[in-house]
Amino acid sequence: MRIPELADIQAAHSKIRPFIHNTPVMKSSQLNELFNCELFFKCENFQKVGAFKFRGATNAVLSLSSVERSKGVVTHSSGNHAAALSLAARMSGITAKIVMPENAPVVKKNAVAGYGADITYCKPTLQAREEATRQIIEKTGATLIHPYDNFNVICGQGTAALELLQEIGDLEIVVAPVGGGGLLSGTSACVKGITKNIQVIGAEPLNANDAFISFTTGVLTPSVNPVTCADGLLTSLSELTFSVIKKNTDNILTAKEDSIIECMLLVWERMKIIIEPSSATVLAVVKENPGLFEGKKTGLIISGGNVDFRKLPF
Amino acid sequence: MRIPELADIQAAHSKIRPFIHNTPVMKSSQLNELFNCELFFKCENFQKVGAFKFRGATNAVLSLSSVERSKGVVTHSSGNHAAALSLAARMSGITAKIVMPENAPVVKKNAVAGYGADITYCKPTLQAREEATRQIIEKTGATLIHPYDNFNVICGQGTAALELLQEIGDLEIVVAPVGGGGLLSGTSACVKGITKNIQVIGAEPLNANDAFISFTTGVLTPSVNPVTCADGLLTSLSELTFSVIKKNTDNILTAKEDSIIECMLLVWERMKIIIEPSSATVLAVVKENPGLFEGKKTGLIISGGNVDFRKLPF
Repeated sequence: MRIPELADIQAAHSKIRPFIHNTPVMKSSQLNELFNCELFFKCENFQKVGAFKFRGATNAVLSLSSVERSKGVVTHSSGNHAAALSLAARMSGITAKIVMPENAPVVKKNAVAGYGADITYCKPTLQAREEATRQIIEKTGATLIHPYDNFNVICGQGTAALELLQEIGDLEIVVAPVGGGGLLSGTSACVKGITKNIQVIGAEPLNANDAFISFTTGVLTPSVNPVTCADGLLTSLSELTFSVIKKNTDNILTAKEDSIIECMLLVWERMKIIIEPSSATVLAVVKENPGLFEGKKTGLIISGGNVDFRKLPF
Repeated sequence: MRIPELADIQAAHSKIRPFIHNTPVMKSSQLNELFNCELFFKCENFQKVGAFKFRGATNAVLSLSSVERSKGVVTHSSGNHAAALSLAARMSGITAKIVMPENAPVVKKNAVAGYGADITYCKPTLQAREEATRQIIEKTGATLIHPYDNFNVICGQGTAALELLQEIGDLEIVVAPVGGGGLLSGTSACVKGITKNIQVIGAEPLNANDAFISFTTGVLTPSVNPVTCADGLLTSLSELTFSVIKKNTDNILTAKEDSIIECMLLVWERMKIIIEPSSATVLAVVKENPGLFEGKKTGLIISGGNVDFRKLPF
């Protein structure tokens, strides 16, 4: 199993740079004062499709051979990855087929359809999604682009940390959220490839703490039906992301639901930017571990800003 | 009555520049496509205290004589101006006394108290507020800083447009919201002082259209108990702001409540930034007057981002 290294992430960045936003790094003196450290927010909520997922999807699409391009891409997802892959495919002039559960929210169906993808609806079970995907691959030869268990996707996700470190040279800690582990894999491989002097920490909801358990025990242990407001972090690590994280991450910290919600509201109120609950998880681990971050220059990867405003957790 | 000119606004900018944020100018290709013009958002929601009001309050405080400084400042307000004056005073090391109605929301009381101001509560009538303010002035000799009927405040508010035009040289239209008229006065005096070739348009809720009526009839006509979700635009023009606006503004356009709410949601969803309903009014007039803005490079002054997340209009 080949594991992404810094050079792979740098190559990905050269490839995707013309298509992505180099998102801003924001600061807040109020939050620095409140948490007694110096925070740098890498704002992937301002990325295309409103999430870092566009980086990985674009790198995966741009890494296809011309034969693969002609047959298109496919994935099963109802979240940010589906929208990201749809837009990345459209920008490259290739077809994207997305398998979605028939009960997916209308707003998500519309987002994916709006990016011109071809949607196949299926029953809302993992088995039905995988079967529908298998049939599409069999029929069309499309390439499956997994949301995180994919080398090129991980390399793309790592480019957010690359830009962060290019802009802020002297960070002491970098924190990224962890669900399936694509973002944390890319982030940790990038940071440790640049310097061993920066700590890399994964932030996970306590209610979906499979990465914490896997990391602590050394045994890959998926979550079973986790329930958290951080709906982007429900997925579990894969063999690939677990390997990268084990090698490059210093620690995984968990955050309670009320900390996540409180920190989401804090960022909305004080910074006037919209972040999704998954992104607030990184600030919530800072809040819950004051001793660890005190006085430290800390980079936080803000994963996205796609929120249903009619179902706010606060 | 002396009317603010470009030179006054430039002088204000030199004075306040070390204390304010030079807020970013943001763009959105999605909104440009939707409205068929090129929009530049001057994001005063990222200003200190979350609103452009900090510019005017800071300029007013920095324009005091040393005798005036020693006696402090006073205003009656429960909104962004009270917070702005409190912080501006604290940063200058002078006292601020704020008269607030006793039924003001706790969150607003806390914000003003958090900036170290001395709050006097009164009955929730204009008469009680004015009487309490008069007594404070009599007792302490504090200088009244009116939220908009004040030369130095208007000059400070105009500095947002100055920065916008410094950054984007070739705008064709600038739109600012209008309530009491401080922001529109400063904006229009600044823009027309730089060039007569840029149109300046005021944006007002249809349900609080005193500026539209005053501008159209030529007779200052205050609103009576207006009701709009754009709670920063409930106030009416003063003689001073009306004079500046009559001289420098090309047109005032109104927007319906549902347009304002729709445009607020659009900015939240597509741009991932938090703007208050008053700010959405500028985009709402673009939406309601497509012919006027088609293909035009249009600057929008986003006045602020202070929103009660538990009382969203959508």
